[in-house]
Amino acid sequence: MDSQESLTKDFPLVTKDMELSEFPQTLQQAMASAPNEQISSVEEIRRPVFSVLNTPDPPAPWKELASSVRVKVLSHGKKSRSLPHFLLSGLQGLFPVLRWGRNYCLKSFQSDIMAGLTLASLGIPQSIGYASLAKLEPQYGLYTNLVPPLVYAVMGTSREIAIGPVAVVSLLISSMIQKIVDPSIDSAGYKKIIFTVTFFTGVFQACFGFFRLGFLVNFLSHAAIVGFMGGAAIVIGLQQLKGLLGLTHFTNKTDLVSVIEAVWIGMHQSWHPSNFFLGCFFLIFILVARFLGRRKAKLFWLQAIAPLISVILSTVIVFLFRGDRHGLKIIKDVKSGLNPSSVKQLQFTGPFVGESAKIGVICAVIALTEAVAVGRSFASVRGYQLDGNKEMIAMGFMNIIGSLSSCYVATGSFSRTAVNFFAGCKSPVSNIIMAVTVFITLEFLTRLLYYTPVAILASIILSALPGLIDVQEAWSIWKIDKMDFLACVGAFIGVLIGSVEIGLLLAVIISFARIMLSSLRPRIEALGRVEGTNIFCSKRQYPISALAPGLMIIHIGTSFLCFINANFTRERVTRFVLEGKKLQKENIEGKIQYIVIDMSNVMNIDSSGIAALEEIHSRLESLRIQVAVANPGWQVIHKMKLAGLVQRIGDPWIFLTVGEAVEAFLSFSV
Amino acid sequence: MDSQESLTKDFPLVTKDMELSEFPQTLQQAMASAPNEQISSVEEIRRPVFSVLNTPDPPAPWKELASSVRVKVLSHGKKSRSLPHFLLSGLQGLFPVLRWGRNYCLKSFQSDIMAGLTLASLGIPQSIGYASLAKLEPQYGLYTNLVPPLVYAVMGTSREIAIGPVAVVSLLISSMIQKIVDPSIDSAGYKKIIFTVTFFTGVFQACFGFFRLGFLVNFLSHAAIVGFMGGAAIVIGLQQLKGLLGLTHFTNKTDLVSVIEAVWIGMHQSWHPSNFFLGCFFLIFILVARFLGRRKAKLFWLQAIAPLISVILSTVIVFLFRGDRHGLKIIKDVKSGLNPSSVKQLQFTGPFVGESAKIGVICAVIALTEAVAVGRSFASVRGYQLDGNKEMIAMGFMNIIGSLSSCYVATGSFSRTAVNFFAGCKSPVSNIIMAVTVFITLEFLTRLLYYTPVAILASIILSALPGLIDVQEAWSIWKIDKMDFLACVGAFIGVLIGSVEIGLLLAVIISFARIMLSSLRPRIEALGRVEGTNIFCSKRQYPISALAPGLMIIHIGTSFLCFINANFTRERVTRFVLEGKKLQKENIEGKIQYIVIDMSNVMNIDSSGIAALEEIHSRLESLRIQVAVANPGWQVIHKMKLAGLVQRIGDPWIFLTVGEAVEAFLSFSV
Repeated sequence: MDSQESLTKDFPLVTKDMELSEFPQTLQQAMASAPNEQISSVEEIRRPVFSVLNTPDPPAPWKELASSVRVKVLSHGKKSRSLPHFLLSGLQGLFPVLRWGRNYCLKSFQSDIMAGLTLASLGIPQSIGYASLAKLEPQYGLYTNLVPPLVYAVMGTSREIAIGPVAVVSLLISSMIQKIVDPSIDSAGYKKIIFTVTFFTGVFQACFGFFRLGFLVNFLSHAAIVGFMGGAAIVIGLQQLKGLLGLTHFTNKTDLVSVIEAVWIGMHQSWHPSNFFLGCFFLIFILVARFLGRRKAKLFWLQAIAPLISVILSTVIVFLFRGDRHGLKIIKDVKSGLNPSSVKQLQFTGPFVGESAKIGVICAVIALTEAVAVGRSFASVRGYQLDGNKEMIAMGFMNIIGSLSSCYVATGSFSRTAVNFFAGCKSPVSNIIMAVTVFITLEFLTRLLYYTPVAILASIILSALPGLIDVQEAWSIWKIDKMDFLACVGAFIGVLIGSVEIGLLLAVIISFARIMLSSLRPRIEALGRVEGTNIFCSKRQYPISALAPGLMIIHIGTSFLCFINANFTRERVTRFVLEGKKLQKENIEGKIQYIVIDMSNVMNIDSSGIAALEEIHSRLESLRIQVAVANPGWQVIHKMKLAGLVQRIGDPWIFLTVGEAVEAFLSFSV
Repeated sequence: MDSQESLTKDFPLVTKDMELSEFPQTLQQAMASAPNEQISSVEEIRRPVFSVLNTPDPPAPWKELASSVRVKVLSHGKKSRSLPHFLLSGLQGLFPVLRWGRNYCLKSFQSDIMAGLTLASLGIPQSIGYASLAKLEPQYGLYTNLVPPLVYAVMGTSREIAIGPVAVVSLLISSMIQKIVDPSIDSAGYKKIIFTVTFFTGVFQACFGFFRLGFLVNFLSHAAIVGFMGGAAIVIGLQQLKGLLGLTHFTNKTDLVSVIEAVWIGMHQSWHPSNFFLGCFFLIFILVARFLGRRKAKLFWLQAIAPLISVILSTVIVFLFRGDRHGLKIIKDVKSGLNPSSVKQLQFTGPFVGESAKIGVICAVIALTEAVAVGRSFASVRGYQLDGNKEMIAMGFMNIIGSLSSCYVATGSFSRTAVNFFAGCKSPVSNIIMAVTVFITLEFLTRLLYYTPVAILASIILSALPGLIDVQEAWSIWKIDKMDFLACVGAFIGVLIGSVEIGLLLAVIISFARIMLSSLRPRIEALGRVEGTNIFCSKRQYPISALAPGLMIIHIGTSFLCFINANFTRERVTRFVLEGKKLQKENIEGKIQYIVIDMSNVMNIDSSGIAALEEIHSRLESLRIQVAVANPGWQVIHKMKLAGLVQRIGDPWIFLTVGEAVEAFLSFSV
């Protein structure tokens, strides 16, 4: 790193036609001479303005941890010095409504009413559909669209996010729980586990937020999520074939083969084309409405209202022509009334508690992943930042309270959040408006849903799926990073062929294997100097770079030199030297006398790394090659001192920059 | 990286007392003006000698993989062009004896005979003891000391390593297998599983070597091994209390609590002090012999021969005084004759195959870890390098052939290798000599072992244990790296309190969690320039470094900017900027107009990392801050190009060094 022109004057690049014979003696002699003399001479050459070795010790790991916790804890209460102020700010932290509520004005309320109603017109049919995906009765979808949004409205920090049941989590929860209890056999037992899982999901989410474990959500890489969502969308679409074709019997499995088999068998047994035609008609209607809504901003309401129109129209049609007598499947009874309490249905004893907690963890991570991604992307459009940890606490409490009031896992829905955003919502009040609308529906309108055909629910779900399949993003991942694409495809195929869990597992394994792999084989490269400058860079990347004969710079490209890569590093460095010696035998290059190990990338090291450096040093010493170390990280130089490695290499051979190290060599050789 | 003095002349450090009012307009205007004009002016300023953007594309991942495989495969056969030559070099690769055997001379043979006999005198009593640790009859220890050393002698590359049963693997294999079959109930079934496990161990070891998976051995960090070995040594020592106290009933468990309980119960039921006194006497004898042997090089033979002397003396004592009638436990019958075949005892069907394979993997890794560590440390003393992959193939074949001839898992023993080395071995022939001695023992001398007291075997094993407990190393690990020490202690306590597997698992988990943690939270730091130089370094590490007002350099300290740290990086960078803005409000520093992101540490990036960079860029852009990127890695710049990020940031804002980027800013502001 330098300004080039000024340097070239008094720092000439040593070219290859310098007399080779001059070097060996000089440096060899210097090395052979009394070490004290040698050290002083090097000190002179280095003109150290300041040294790597004189920096203060880095803070101990626990001190760093403590200070980071202190910063986080105090950051809330910094401005408030008195107790009431402190309590108020704590309350405001937990219930952001206390902060934004004070400045809330009528104009925002008007916008929120419009957005809330639009949201409800989309959310009510969707949530009924998702309830069927979760193998629950329709009212549970409505319940989940009532309590969690209210809780989120007082605790959440996102202004746009629309809370309620979502497709992927509905699929996930039903596909995992029905392995324990079959809902078609023991409906009450199934529901008990649903609520227990929801409770655990909430507890885990709140814990993630409280203990600031937000990074857990990052354990699924972006690529894996793209693949997983795509696969899940197709699986969900296939599940809808049951409703769309009016099949009575269907498989509980979610993989491609089982579903196609079930459809094949079903179509040979009991198939009512009327379901299919009705469903397809309204599916096309919704898709066209969405297409128009996206093309023209003025027609935006069309895509939000289309599902509700479909439900109303199809219900009227079925009612008028008594379609249920002609093989059309209908929803029939939807229990009216507000959410009943489900406190007594939670099961904390019995054989399924462990399993429920496990499913709870998975649901917590997936639900948070979706919600955080949705919330963050809309927050960044509006130019504010979400506090991930607060969001997690809000989501956690909303699911805990949901689990006590007959709701299953709720989270932020991408499609509804977009609608909420474009409908002009200003605050979480739009969620409250939606919840009120759902409440009215539950109290007074459930009877109207009696004749709603099941095929319509299927087509509403189907119409929401294209948003989950992001081919463009997959393509750009392929372009940028093939290994990332592998994780994407792994998750996709895993969900499609195996099961939802297998897809998730594959995605996590591939993503982590990659990090391991990149730590396992760091890039060890020979550096050269760019002619006319003092810039040192990879000889492979910049073939024009070169070095003085007898000199070699090796760059260690890992930020943590530790047990899994220490050996590799040691072997690779040795190989570089041996290859250099081979070239030397073939008279291509001069004898290597001096090796600079550029450790500027190494930020941390463990005892295996220290041992590897020691071995490298003693091996090169036995080959009569002088080793210099350039720019080790703060922790690294500290640990090298502690291990006595600095002493062994020799103080004067540890430099702040590669440039200085090279200069020291050149001063010797000239 | 630079030469300082030359730079300071024409590259003055901008000091804080420069007029702040000058900057904002200049850069802001420049940024606001037509982008084309701006770019050309920056181009002029940069005087690019060569650019980061003009380097060739990095090789694709599969090309790198292919070329690395090609190098490895061809490296054997490079010199041989004809088929016979190729075959010969292949054979020599597989059987190194064909290479070193041709230069083997009589003088080496004499040394090897001496070393081999010394080895046998130590190895025979040890292997009988280890067989009892593995819950097998004494002859199985001898078998294992016969066939595997012969196989290794023709296939191995280490000259010093002594092959045979070792304490830790014996403990490991018995503690894991007796959970499946209890040897005291079904001795034949237990042996079948022992041989099957040995077979799997060999197969896995050979596969590791063949597929060059040597890095798997590194998955146990050095610290974890120190802790594990220490814990295992104590567990083994506790197991010896059975023999030393002459107890009849003992626990099958290995944890501290169970063993102490068993000893307590045993000492109240049936305890024969004569065993204890005899054992202690010879234990002290062996320890004194070793102490003397270590102090004086001439008395070296003493420590090697002491166990054999103990066996002979104690056997004679017992025989003369008929000690077995006075409660002294003796070995009794040792089956004489060469190893019987165990081909038919291998079980590849039945309920335990999966379990056997699992135990085989663990044994393979532990055995290799010990052997490679031993072989490598002695090879480095003699100044040659071991080929880890060839060693693994040799170990694999030796265990496969061993499993067919009634041997259990063999590996390189540390204590015997040291004896072999100090006895002056020159080649693996010393292993052959030892095997021949064992063969003679098996054929003719087993009857003499009838009266050998069990307590002597216990004291021989006990005497070998102090070498496994490396307190000094643990202390140096504590000094260097506290987290490493945690892995060490975790493994130690896991083995001691839980079981051998729990200890291993803990060690692996702690070690890996650490790597994850270090990837999870990379060090993101603000850099400053050291006054009077062009060196940029961490402001925290070098408090004397400073920067021109309005400028900020942020260093990203991870080698792989990927999904698990992309978010953290984004948040940390944003926080730096916001903190900078806060300082600006308090009039401490100038308005930030220009941020250089120093990516010299980032060697690779994935799509989440690219997305994070994009977000950082767009967020800073919205704050009217110009972003420059300095020195991204080869893969990184390639992927940034592919993702269109280079275009978005703007070609002229991507620099090769931080120095150049800062220079560009200063040219604007002046």
